[in-house]
Amino acid sequence: MAISINPTAAARVSFDTDPTRYRHWRLTIDGPVATLGMDVQEDAPLVPDYRLKLNSYDLGVDIELADAVQRLRFEHPEVHAVVITSLKERIFCAGANIFMLRGSSHAWKVNFCKYTNETRLAIEDASANSGLKFLAALNGICAGGGYELALACDEIVLVDDSNSAVSLPETPLLGVLPGTGGLTRVVDKRRVRRDLADVFGTLAEGVKGRRAVEWGLVDAVAPASRFAEAVRERAIRLAAQSDRPASGPGIALTPLSVKEHGDAVEYSTVSYVVDRARRVATLVVRAPESAVEATPEAILAAGDRFWPLRAFRELDDAILRLRMHEPEIGTVVLKAEGDPALVCEADAVLLAHREHWLVREVIHFIKRTLKRLDLTARSLFALVEPGNAFAGTLFELALAADRAYMLDDPDRPNTIQLTGMNGGALPMGNGLSRLAARFYGRPDHVNGVLAHTSAFDAAEATAAGLITVAPDEIDWEDEVRQAIEARAALSPDALTGLEANLRFVGPETLETKIFGRLSAWQNWIFQRPNAVGPKGALTCYGSSERAEFDWTRT
Amino acid sequence: MAISINPTAAARVSFDTDPTRYRHWRLTIDGPVATLGMDVQEDAPLVPDYRLKLNSYDLGVDIELADAVQRLRFEHPEVHAVVITSLKERIFCAGANIFMLRGSSHAWKVNFCKYTNETRLAIEDASANSGLKFLAALNGICAGGGYELALACDEIVLVDDSNSAVSLPETPLLGVLPGTGGLTRVVDKRRVRRDLADVFGTLAEGVKGRRAVEWGLVDAVAPASRFAEAVRERAIRLAAQSDRPASGPGIALTPLSVKEHGDAVEYSTVSYVVDRARRVATLVVRAPESAVEATPEAILAAGDRFWPLRAFRELDDAILRLRMHEPEIGTVVLKAEGDPALVCEADAVLLAHREHWLVREVIHFIKRTLKRLDLTARSLFALVEPGNAFAGTLFELALAADRAYMLDDPDRPNTIQLTGMNGGALPMGNGLSRLAARFYGRPDHVNGVLAHTSAFDAAEATAAGLITVAPDEIDWEDEVRQAIEARAALSPDALTGLEANLRFVGPETLETKIFGRLSAWQNWIFQRPNAVGPKGALTCYGSSERAEFDWTRT
Repeated sequence: MAISINPTAAARVSFDTDPTRYRHWRLTIDGPVATLGMDVQEDAPLVPDYRLKLNSYDLGVDIELADAVQRLRFEHPEVHAVVITSLKERIFCAGANIFMLRGSSHAWKVNFCKYTNETRLAIEDASANSGLKFLAALNGICAGGGYELALACDEIVLVDDSNSAVSLPETPLLGVLPGTGGLTRVVDKRRVRRDLADVFGTLAEGVKGRRAVEWGLVDAVAPASRFAEAVRERAIRLAAQSDRPASGPGIALTPLSVKEHGDAVEYSTVSYVVDRARRVATLVVRAPESAVEATPEAILAAGDRFWPLRAFRELDDAILRLRMHEPEIGTVVLKAEGDPALVCEADAVLLAHREHWLVREVIHFIKRTLKRLDLTARSLFALVEPGNAFAGTLFELALAADRAYMLDDPDRPNTIQLTGMNGGALPMGNGLSRLAARFYGRPDHVNGVLAHTSAFDAAEATAAGLITVAPDEIDWEDEVRQAIEARAALSPDALTGLEANLRFVGPETLETKIFGRLSAWQNWIFQRPNAVGPKGALTCYGSSERAEFDWTRT
Repeated sequence: MAISINPTAAARVSFDTDPTRYRHWRLTIDGPVATLGMDVQEDAPLVPDYRLKLNSYDLGVDIELADAVQRLRFEHPEVHAVVITSLKERIFCAGANIFMLRGSSHAWKVNFCKYTNETRLAIEDASANSGLKFLAALNGICAGGGYELALACDEIVLVDDSNSAVSLPETPLLGVLPGTGGLTRVVDKRRVRRDLADVFGTLAEGVKGRRAVEWGLVDAVAPASRFAEAVRERAIRLAAQSDRPASGPGIALTPLSVKEHGDAVEYSTVSYVVDRARRVATLVVRAPESAVEATPEAILAAGDRFWPLRAFRELDDAILRLRMHEPEIGTVVLKAEGDPALVCEADAVLLAHREHWLVREVIHFIKRTLKRLDLTARSLFALVEPGNAFAGTLFELALAADRAYMLDDPDRPNTIQLTGMNGGALPMGNGLSRLAARFYGRPDHVNGVLAHTSAFDAAEATAAGLITVAPDEIDWEDEVRQAIEARAALSPDALTGLEANLRFVGPETLETKIFGRLSAWQNWIFQRPNAVGPKGALTCYGSSERAEFDWTRT
């Protein structure tokens, strides 16, 4: 079996698409209800080693889904509900493509699952925070990742035709787990009883009809003759729950402007450069160059040129590229440059108009991008140097970092600053602001630093605990260099585990349980010979070989 | 490098010990303060493939520690605080023995870490629920698992001698994580700032003196000249917080009576038999044979013959044996037999006297044993048949099971019953009662079934959702047999992941984060070539070889 898909082979994956270029989805809009029809083209996989049969998906299919959800939020505020369905007969979705998974490197599997998890959480975020409701209209068999996509929707309707079932067959058929939140959502979100979930999770053929409703796996079933009508009724009812504007226009998300030259990637406000010898990338986000638009009308007119949206769209793309294109870059050095006063002004605009639908979308998008950073399995070091723009929203980058170094040189002014945007507008997946996570269990201290509305110099920032260490001008260069070199020498696996544990202090949510408990177990299983060895279940699937297990329980 | 330690090699590990037989600890009692002195005998490892240098530990050392904590609770109610220290010079504890870990099978590593985690959580349980406070008196170097033991204590004092540091060197030295809750406790319990925890977790030499206090890693430092005095003062202050009795006597925990014949193991109220061909164990807990002692005086006089304590001590031992001695037994069938009325009476006694120190200890011990069952990586199926004693506390076994099957035969009465003990006295690690976890998000339903104070027959139990399925007498045998056979055919790794996700619905606590997020990541790392491959860091430790890493980040 060829191990053909790996981050290097697929290194030129692009996250940039739009509906005119979709190969796997059709987006149609009818008043307040949009329909996302899944119609995966078998012969258009991301790499040509497998065929996407039965509406199975690979990363390319999911990039289009993520794009569609994002565009509905920004481009179509008049859409209040989305029906996710299949344009194929008798099959909704067969889940992630097994042959793709089987041919993938471990790192690719893990990053693929992480991205698809983020897409499903973005659907839930749109529902919870943006009034955009989702209905899964399962017009045929719905297996594995297909059902996990349905679980991310607000409601699920299944056609009742004696054939169509929902299932999570990963354990019985492949010896792995449903990798996109399925187990967590079944019990935590849909509150299926744990023993029924146990039966369901070991039943390759799944559950259909009445029983699927009784167990809580779907909200309703409808016979084929009434299916379209039932879906329509539910979609309209869901749309009525929305608090989105009655009409548009939205703003267009135009293609990102990005230039690559050698190991440097340059957007309009974000850039990064890769040092392969040291396995370090340096990523810079630049403050706006002039005051941002300050009224909803002006922001609407600016559209995706509005700096907060532009900067974080670029940052989001840069994070995804670093994850997928640069698997051996272990440390990302984060910098913010420019005039911090302009960042503070932009934050004031965001906060003043946070009730406006577009500003709300921008804030939630910034939040999601920062969550992607939290979940990026690379060491993050923030460097705070003179000329920095680590203020407010951009200071969240330093708060997301594993460490922050700040130069303390009396001859060169160097400050950081907090704004109201650090006070809870951009929560982590665990529901805490990054300041509350940093000062876990010390709410008075959080309030104290937030009350400090002027800039912090290095001594003040150190005293307040906002940075890790503030070397002086004599030590700065050596200390930073040594820290980066020392980091690069450590086991990348141990660092991934260390960071995943230290970053998420405090409460766990459905979201962090998916990335913590569930994904960590799945990643373990993805390493085990019982799944991926020569006789493993994933290896043998679809062949004449039968899996052979080492029966030792751990 | 020999892979010498595996569950088969160490299959005869005994969990039965007492202070007269300790080889590695010395327990002394001085009024309300006990001292547990660690003095690991280098030449007394569990298996003879490594030496326990520098107060490093293996499972044998930890079994003694767990025994000592347990005995202090039951045998010495007059002890209100425990000082954990070292009897060696300049070294407190070097952590888990690396050569033991390196030589262990994956399953052994995982089970070793699980047991040591349970021991540390038992220390915290004693403090939180039993008024027995713990002080770590670090009189020398305290590394890795040594520091994790200290983290489990209420307070930590470190000697300030320019040599003694606390450290978690697993990542920099071994390419693995601190596996006994270290990362979680540093940020979640001690609330060390995450960036300082990041520095600490990558610093092989650790942190000492004033800085260890400033970072929150220890509560105080004291120079060697004042160390004993500082420890004594703190221990007395901690003891004063206790609500334990001013004086004894306690009760003696006598050796368990256990007989092994072939594949059957028999205690006084618990037995199990292993069917190796089917990879199934059947474990039976028997109800008391007559009414249990009903007053605190009588319970004290009965001592460890008091049925609730006896049954769960035996069950605890059986669970540990199944974990360690029977690695290939994938399914445990749980049965309760005898007169359920006597179990209900026993529950009434426990609830009536729950404020009495001994009854409180018994209830918390039952709770801990059931938590061990929740954490046991085997499929658990409860079979509810005529003559069963699944009532109250014993019904928790069925609630802990992944599924419960109940025979529905009109000719043979077969009922289950709830008592007040199902209402929250025996919470899971996530803080929920098993009923609340089963009916997650449906508190009214929980209250409804608890209000049903008579027995449930199969139809009622099914309607109430208390059992999974109730086959009739025609289907029973086939359905149960097929379910067990189908289970045994699935990948043991996928089942471990599935069960670990479905069992712990709802909130996560420090405890479940340790077993979910942290342990799952650690188990993943323990599989990775960067740790355990021929050039992995764990493999190369202590040799002249240098670790070589695959730098791919996941």
